[in-house]
Amino acid sequence: MELVLEGDVVRGGSEARERFYDSRGYGHVDGGGLALSPVEAAHLLYRGDVEHIRDGRSDEALDFQALLSSAAVSEIDVLVYKDLRDRGFYLSPAREGWVDGPSGTDFVVYPRGQGPWDDDVAYRIRAISERTAVSAATLGDSVLAVVDEESAITYLETSHPDIAGSSTTDLPSGVAADLLGDRVLAPDPPEALYFEGFYGQPLDDEAGEPLQLSLIEAAALASQGVLDVEGGADAIVECGREVEGERFDRRLAVYRALRERGVVPKTGYKFGADFRTYADVESVDSLGHSELLVRVLPADHAFTPRDLALDVRLAHGVRKRMVFALVAEADADGDPRIEWLEVGRLTP
Amino acid sequence: MELVLEGDVVRGGSEARERFYDSRGYGHVDGGGLALSPVEAAHLLYRGDVEHIRDGRSDEALDFQALLSSAAVSEIDVLVYKDLRDRGFYLSPAREGWVDGPSGTDFVVYPRGQGPWDDDVAYRIRAISERTAVSAATLGDSVLAVVDEESAITYLETSHPDIAGSSTTDLPSGVAADLLGDRVLAPDPPEALYFEGFYGQPLDDEAGEPLQLSLIEAAALASQGVLDVEGGADAIVECGREVEGERFDRRLAVYRALRERGVVPKTGYKFGADFRTYADVESVDSLGHSELLVRVLPADHAFTPRDLALDVRLAHGVRKRMVFALVAEADADGDPRIEWLEVGRLTP
Repeated sequence: MELVLEGDVVRGGSEARERFYDSRGYGHVDGGGLALSPVEAAHLLYRGDVEHIRDGRSDEALDFQALLSSAAVSEIDVLVYKDLRDRGFYLSPAREGWVDGPSGTDFVVYPRGQGPWDDDVAYRIRAISERTAVSAATLGDSVLAVVDEESAITYLETSHPDIAGSSTTDLPSGVAADLLGDRVLAPDPPEALYFEGFYGQPLDDEAGEPLQLSLIEAAALASQGVLDVEGGADAIVECGREVEGERFDRRLAVYRALRERGVVPKTGYKFGADFRTYADVESVDSLGHSELLVRVLPADHAFTPRDLALDVRLAHGVRKRMVFALVAEADADGDPRIEWLEVGRLTP
Repeated sequence: MELVLEGDVVRGGSEARERFYDSRGYGHVDGGGLALSPVEAAHLLYRGDVEHIRDGRSDEALDFQALLSSAAVSEIDVLVYKDLRDRGFYLSPAREGWVDGPSGTDFVVYPRGQGPWDDDVAYRIRAISERTAVSAATLGDSVLAVVDEESAITYLETSHPDIAGSSTTDLPSGVAADLLGDRVLAPDPPEALYFEGFYGQPLDDEAGEPLQLSLIEAAALASQGVLDVEGGADAIVECGREVEGERFDRRLAVYRALRERGVVPKTGYKFGADFRTYADVESVDSLGHSELLVRVLPADHAFTPRDLALDVRLAHGVRKRMVFALVAEADADGDPRIEWLEVGRLTP
C-alpha cells in the first residue's frame, strides 16, 4: 500500500481507503481511492500506521519528521489534529468539496462516535498559533484552537449571544448635578436614581447622600433629561472625549444599548473590563451576582490570543461570561451598530 | 474660629490647631496656628466640622460643594483622603516640609492609632484616576490608590521583590533539534532535558517522545551548547524576532535571568502572561504550584490602571504573585538591565 504526496493531497488506493477512511475516518473518498490532507498523513506517520509516504515530485520517502519539516504541513495544524484525535474525535480538514462551508475553518470535528460519513458537526475549528492575531469580525461561529509557544492547546468557543434583561426604572427629571474633573456629582439626588435604577454611587452608602456618577452614566442620563448639568449632555460627552478619546463614544453607545435591553452596566474596572452587568435589577438592596463582563472594542479590532486568554480566564475565575461589544461606525440613522461576541473556555 | 484659603493652604489659628491637629491629626503646625491642605479642609467641610471656609481672595464663603468645584482641590484626592479616614487612619498630604520624602507621593498614612506627631509610616499613597497612565519606573515604593470611574477605590501595593530559587540541572550537550515554524522539535531528546530541567514539552507525555521546545527555551539552550540546531542560536533568535519583534529579545533576557536565579520559567499563556515560574524544581514528577506570573515589559512602559487591575486580579485568583520584569537597554557589557516590580492587592 503506497501513499503519494501530490501537490497538497496525499493519494492512496482502495486498500488505503478501506483501512483509513472506512474504519477510522481519515481523508476523503476520491473515486475508489483515498485523498488525505498532508496533516492527516502526518498523523498516520506519527502513529506508525504507515512508515513513509512518497513525495511524488522527488520520489523521496518522507517520514514524520521530514514531512513536518517540509512546507506541505503547518506544525500548528498537526498539533491540533493530533490533540483532537487523542481526545477521541474524528475530524476532517475543511477543504472545498470535503465538508460543507469550509470557509474560515481548518477542521470540522464530528460528535464522538460519528465521522465524515455522518451529517452532524460538533465543532468548527480554527487552529492558530498564540502569536496569530485574529480579527474579531471573523469570530462567532468557530472554536479557536490556540497552540501556545510550548505547544499546549487551549480551546475558545465563540458565539453571538442574545443580550437581554428585565431591568427598568421610572426616572425623575431635572436632577441638578455638577461636572467635577472626570466625574459628576448630584448633591441632592432622588432615591430612585441609585436605589432602583442603580445609577451612580452614593458618597456614603446611605440614602440622602450626594451621588457620584460616572461620565458615561451622566451623559446617558443628561441626554434623557434626567440630569440637569451645565452645558447639558454635550458638555459631559466633550469631557469624556477629552479623557478617553473616541473610546468614550463607543463605551457610551454600548452603555445605552445595554440599558435599552434591560441590562444594567456598572464599571468593570476591578475585573479590567469596561462593564460588569446585571440582567434583573429590581433594587440595589436585592442585587444578585453580575453575569457578564463586557469589553468594548472597535469593530475592526484584532485580538492577540494572549489577551483573549487573559480576559476569558479572569471571567471564568469570577464565574461570569466574557462578552465583547464590537462597535462599528454609525449607520445612516446615526446609531452605532454593535455586535456582541462571547468567548468562553471549551474542553472538547 | 475661621479658616481661610490662601493660595494652596487653608490657615487657621490656635483654636483650629488644637481642635483639628492636636486631637485628630489634620494639617501641619504653622507657628502657633494650623495650616491645612485644601483636601483636608474639604474633608472637614464634608463632615460638617466646619460649615464654610473663607476664600482669602474673594472673601466668598465656600461650602463643600463649592470647594470641590473649585480648582483648589482634586476630587480624586478628596475621595482617597476620605476613604482612608473612613478606614480609621490619620494621614498627611505629602508636602515639602510637612512630611519626609514627599516626592512621588500624595499622602503619607500613619499606622492606626498614630499620627503626624509620630515617626512611623504605614503607607505612602499615590492617588490617581483609573484613566491616569502610570510610568512603571516610578513604582516600587508606593501604594497606588486608584479611583475608578464610579468613584470606588482600590489599592495596589508595589515593591521590588527578590527573585530567587534553587532549580539547577546538569545539562547534556549537542542534542539534535529542528526549527519548525515558530517552535523547535528535538526528535530524540535525553531525559534530563524535560524530566529534570523542565525544558520543553514532550509530544506525548512520556519518556522517549520527541520534545517540543519554545523558541525562547531553544535559543537559551542553543547558546549554551545544549541544543544543536542548524544555524545555531542565532537562527532561533532571528526566527523569534520575525514573529515577535524586539519583544523576543526582552523575553529571552528575562528567561535567562530567571534561570540564572534558579527559577524555572514556563509559558504563562493560559494566564495571559509571559511566564509562570517554579522556584524549586527537582523533577517534573514532583512539581509544585507555580508561584509567580511574570509579564515582560520595556523599562519605559506606562501602565493603565485597568490593565494593572486585570493582571493583579487574575494572579490573585490563581494564587500567584504578579511580577513585572522591566527590561532596559543593554549596559556597556551588553547585558540588558532588568528591574523586578511586584504589584499586589492591598486592603489598608
